[in-house]
Amino acid sequence: MDNRPIGVFDSGLGGLTAVKELVRVLPGERILYFGDTGRVPYGTRSRETLIRYTREDIAFLSSQGVKRILIACGTASTVLDAIDPDPLIPVSGVLYAASRRAVAATKNGRIGLIATASSIRSGLYEKIISSLLPSAEVVSRATPLLVPLIEAGRIHPGDVVCETVVREYLAPIRDAGVDVLILGCTHYPIIRGIIAAEMGSGVTLIDAGAAAVEEVKTSLENADALSDGRDPGVSFFVTDFPEGFAAVGSMFLGSEIAGRTVKIDLSEKFTAH
Amino acid sequence: MDNRPIGVFDSGLGGLTAVKELVRVLPGERILYFGDTGRVPYGTRSRETLIRYTREDIAFLSSQGVKRILIACGTASTVLDAIDPDPLIPVSGVLYAASRRAVAATKNGRIGLIATASSIRSGLYEKIISSLLPSAEVVSRATPLLVPLIEAGRIHPGDVVCETVVREYLAPIRDAGVDVLILGCTHYPIIRGIIAAEMGSGVTLIDAGAAAVEEVKTSLENADALSDGRDPGVSFFVTDFPEGFAAVGSMFLGSEIAGRTVKIDLSEKFTAH
Repeated sequence: MDNRPIGVFDSGLGGLTAVKELVRVLPGERILYFGDTGRVPYGTRSRETLIRYTREDIAFLSSQGVKRILIACGTASTVLDAIDPDPLIPVSGVLYAASRRAVAATKNGRIGLIATASSIRSGLYEKIISSLLPSAEVVSRATPLLVPLIEAGRIHPGDVVCETVVREYLAPIRDAGVDVLILGCTHYPIIRGIIAAEMGSGVTLIDAGAAAVEEVKTSLENADALSDGRDPGVSFFVTDFPEGFAAVGSMFLGSEIAGRTVKIDLSEKFTAH
Repeated sequence: MDNRPIGVFDSGLGGLTAVKELVRVLPGERILYFGDTGRVPYGTRSRETLIRYTREDIAFLSSQGVKRILIACGTASTVLDAIDPDPLIPVSGVLYAASRRAVAATKNGRIGLIATASSIRSGLYEKIISSLLPSAEVVSRATPLLVPLIEAGRIHPGDVVCETVVREYLAPIRDAGVDVLILGCTHYPIIRGIIAAEMGSGVTLIDAGAAAVEEVKTSLENADALSDGRDPGVSFFVTDFPEGFAAVGSMFLGSEIAGRTVKIDLSEKFTAH
């Protein structure tokens, strides 16, 4: 048993879709969510900048005494190989979990992937999937407008702007005959319905954040590191507190964010708890 | 005569529309352009964060020995009142210049304004315009999707996504009967054609960056601080160097960006030159 909280971070609010899933599968855990809202979005940054940001994000959560860190950000997960691990606080991202689930789900070996520009540029999904299933073919596409559209609330079926953008992005992936599509950014489950309608019923959608949450659960169980369930709940930390944070955040979380958000300054030095 | 360069900064690339104008009206000047591409966008940040970012941006340009600083970012311009001025390096933003031009252009006293969420939230345009023309009525709207759409290259007349978003944003402003519309973000001139088509020929569009450039020119002339024109050109500094920087930047600048971009680290301390 381990009553320390689970730390989760994202560039902003998208990672709350993973928190929603984490609360669902591990309702007894305490969760610290950190959104780097002062530097969002990560999806257009260079690898060098992403490494620096991700190191600082991990240092902050480590300083809060977490037992485990989940990078609930597809983009930040692509630089996990460049992060020196603290052996006492395991860190996991979403790429391996999503890739494993995609490989398990595909029948024809053709796997689609949508993600931010930085994630696609990293080429990491292709590398991981190829190591798991050498015959796999990955059809990937950077979809940079999806995050702004989702954050602007253009998420409802029938929205001509969102549907047009999704259709244009997905057309070449659908036409390539994939039977699995990885949603490589934790924002995307919010428009899962629009994406599913475009891809058709024969295509399995993989929620990268949910895949990672499932593996965190298994790993905590295997290490006998679940909490006793007496202090469940989510606390929120952000680097900027923009207007509309609670409203947009609640959309991602699927429940209200109220009165528990702390703004922190990453220029302070955080050291492990 | 003053041969020191003019410093220009923006959160990212939008300010290059002002640089294009600066090169046009003052072709003999040397210009240092600084785009804070590692922290873009500013338009969703809180005032507190904007003040910190703007101070750091000004400190960097000051360290480069500029004679004057133009904040070619509508959003950063809204916190200029919170910046301690260096009496030796005048700093100007775009709000006063754009407001003066709008007030001069309106006949019916109804002025439209589109800008980022942070700019609109500041309420500063209303305050400035009201001080210049107390009877003026400002009809403003935050238009957060325009920057992502423009950076994604959805800028051409006939693009159903861009035209739909612009139409929805502008409808209430047009219906209010404004005869002037301020483009309060330096990205927006890129889609001037689409905006103009939506507003109709009776509405004067005010390019906030171009208005500010005109006032910088007048002020340098009045202070006898123009350069001798022997070393013109633009140098580029950024805080991140994302893929596609040169391509997107060239779209804004209206000419090629080639081989002259330096990546800097704002965590270094910059002191005045």
